[in-house]
Amino acid sequence: MTSPEKSQRPFTVALDAMGGDFGPSEMVPGAIKAAQELTVEVLLVGEEGPMRGEMARHRADGLPIRIVPSQGVIEETDHPLQAMREKPRASIVEAARLVKTGRAQAMVSMGSTGAAMATAALVYGLLEGVERPAIGGPILAPLSNAVLLDLGSNVDCRPSQLLGFGAIGIAFARRVQGVQDPRVAILSVGAEEGKGNRQTKEAYQLFKASSMNFVGNVEGADIFQDKADVIVCDGFVGNILLKFAEGMGMELARHLSKMAGPTLPAEAMKRLGGELASLTSVVEQAGGGPLFGVNGIAVIGHGRSRSPSIASAIAMAKRAVDFGLVDAMKLELQAIQDQMRGP
Amino acid sequence: MTSPEKSQRPFTVALDAMGGDFGPSEMVPGAIKAAQELTVEVLLVGEEGPMRGEMARHRADGLPIRIVPSQGVIEETDHPLQAMREKPRASIVEAARLVKTGRAQAMVSMGSTGAAMATAALVYGLLEGVERPAIGGPILAPLSNAVLLDLGSNVDCRPSQLLGFGAIGIAFARRVQGVQDPRVAILSVGAEEGKGNRQTKEAYQLFKASSMNFVGNVEGADIFQDKADVIVCDGFVGNILLKFAEGMGMELARHLSKMAGPTLPAEAMKRLGGELASLTSVVEQAGGGPLFGVNGIAVIGHGRSRSPSIASAIAMAKRAVDFGLVDAMKLELQAIQDQMRGP
Repeated sequence: MTSPEKSQRPFTVALDAMGGDFGPSEMVPGAIKAAQELTVEVLLVGEEGPMRGEMARHRADGLPIRIVPSQGVIEETDHPLQAMREKPRASIVEAARLVKTGRAQAMVSMGSTGAAMATAALVYGLLEGVERPAIGGPILAPLSNAVLLDLGSNVDCRPSQLLGFGAIGIAFARRVQGVQDPRVAILSVGAEEGKGNRQTKEAYQLFKASSMNFVGNVEGADIFQDKADVIVCDGFVGNILLKFAEGMGMELARHLSKMAGPTLPAEAMKRLGGELASLTSVVEQAGGGPLFGVNGIAVIGHGRSRSPSIASAIAMAKRAVDFGLVDAMKLELQAIQDQMRGP
Repeated sequence: MTSPEKSQRPFTVALDAMGGDFGPSEMVPGAIKAAQELTVEVLLVGEEGPMRGEMARHRADGLPIRIVPSQGVIEETDHPLQAMREKPRASIVEAARLVKTGRAQAMVSMGSTGAAMATAALVYGLLEGVERPAIGGPILAPLSNAVLLDLGSNVDCRPSQLLGFGAIGIAFARRVQGVQDPRVAILSVGAEEGKGNRQTKEAYQLFKASSMNFVGNVEGADIFQDKADVIVCDGFVGNILLKFAEGMGMELARHLSKMAGPTLPAEAMKRLGGELASLTSVVEQAGGGPLFGVNGIAVIGHGRSRSPSIASAIAMAKRAVDFGLVDAMKLELQAIQDQMRGP
């Protein structure tokens, strides 16, 4: 990630303070950390009692943090659309409304990803040419700076959806990462044009015919070889990869400490294991990722995020706003639409 | 992998000595290593000149190694079926024939996977209920003992093919790994029954209705959590995961040595990096995997295998024969067929 612009333009974030596995006890300290470190006003969207209680446990006097009351939470197990109807004042819905009405410039949630996507899609609206929001980003940084998407919301994608992911990824790589002419690739099982499944083979032809800087297929290992700046895949594949990376990192750390434990100083080993787990932990590295394809900024983090990751997610939301991510995506998507309609 | 049976029953392997990125210069030492360490006769299938030349460079006197002449090699870039017609005496084809005629009990190849699969399917024949051979095994051992398949030969699988992978994996886990009642799972994007893409959701119903010990969906990280003994997926997903694991392992090793280099003894760091790369290297850990679903044993290794991996692949072939893997797979597949036909 390039360093954020030094803009001091006022930025307000609506934080879904009821979401996440640990609720207000991590969300509030995360908000405080963000307010201390960034030029940001935080709207804590949540039930007033728990919010006030948690705020009272910290030194937050004078910080630009405000409580915005909400009622209810959409849980991971809820059906997102149904829950939105039944809990119209749920924290995530209130947070999205604060953005829609201009009171905040972005929202951040560690709650149900499905709920955040449904809310953002309905309250913000979708960008033209997008059917469902997508999740992605340089999730394997610093092992790889490639922007990977989709990571879970879109499965059984049509080839044209992969093309849309390409456009969205280009906008992110160009605006947020500062890559001049991002190289786009399709994640597949072989570099050759004919390799892949039906979906990727058809998508290959669409990318080839587009004006994108398309570099062909890349394989699983190529993600770490700087062969492309944006790598698109079906959300089914991306989500499995994302979780596989975390699982493998944790298991490697455990395994190495067991093997090298007797020969290396305990302190050094502990540090290395921590380093390894951290390198492969999407939560710690990215804090969260912006929801792509919606007409506004929503950063979605992992449910098990602790306060530092929450503050990172707020920083990511600020960067996305500063860099004009939504407008950039609109332009890239428009370019595809124009091209597909023909001259 | 459990330790091989102490059977001293004569075992002959046909080694495709022209395959692999390094050709005879690694295949011949690999054969010699296997002949020295295992009770195995090796038939070196390859062009006579290079074979004799390479044999002369080593102390192989008295070892049970014989050269079986062949003509031509099917390359990675060839179309497998077409190449089989044009090069009917290619090393891989001759090797398969030696098994078919009973001269050898298994073949091993580090050449084109497509060629090995096409040859095995045509020369050995497919098991009933199988449409294309599959590749798999406990490829992430020792980080995970789960048998993963398919890893690349079958893409756009119908749900019933995933069920077939389950049966094949069960046979492997039971016979080769000694797991009593293997737990089978589908690799997906959520544990709940309704999570997944069309393919896995339909497969879920087939598995649920089967007599297998089906434990539901597992996610990417669960591969390392001992939640299932056999994990099935489309070859598109499996192949990407396999290569991703290797790429990530190498990049982690590079990254850690860079970060910890200044603070840890160089020697210790080098060892750790090597350990890490080795743990995630499918080539080194498994040597190769048996081709599943064909009526005979064929172990397929990575093109860049060196002699120790070639010897490991031969050992794997011997184990597969000793454990009656093909017969076990026939039985498991038969059980599915019977069940699907109904009582």
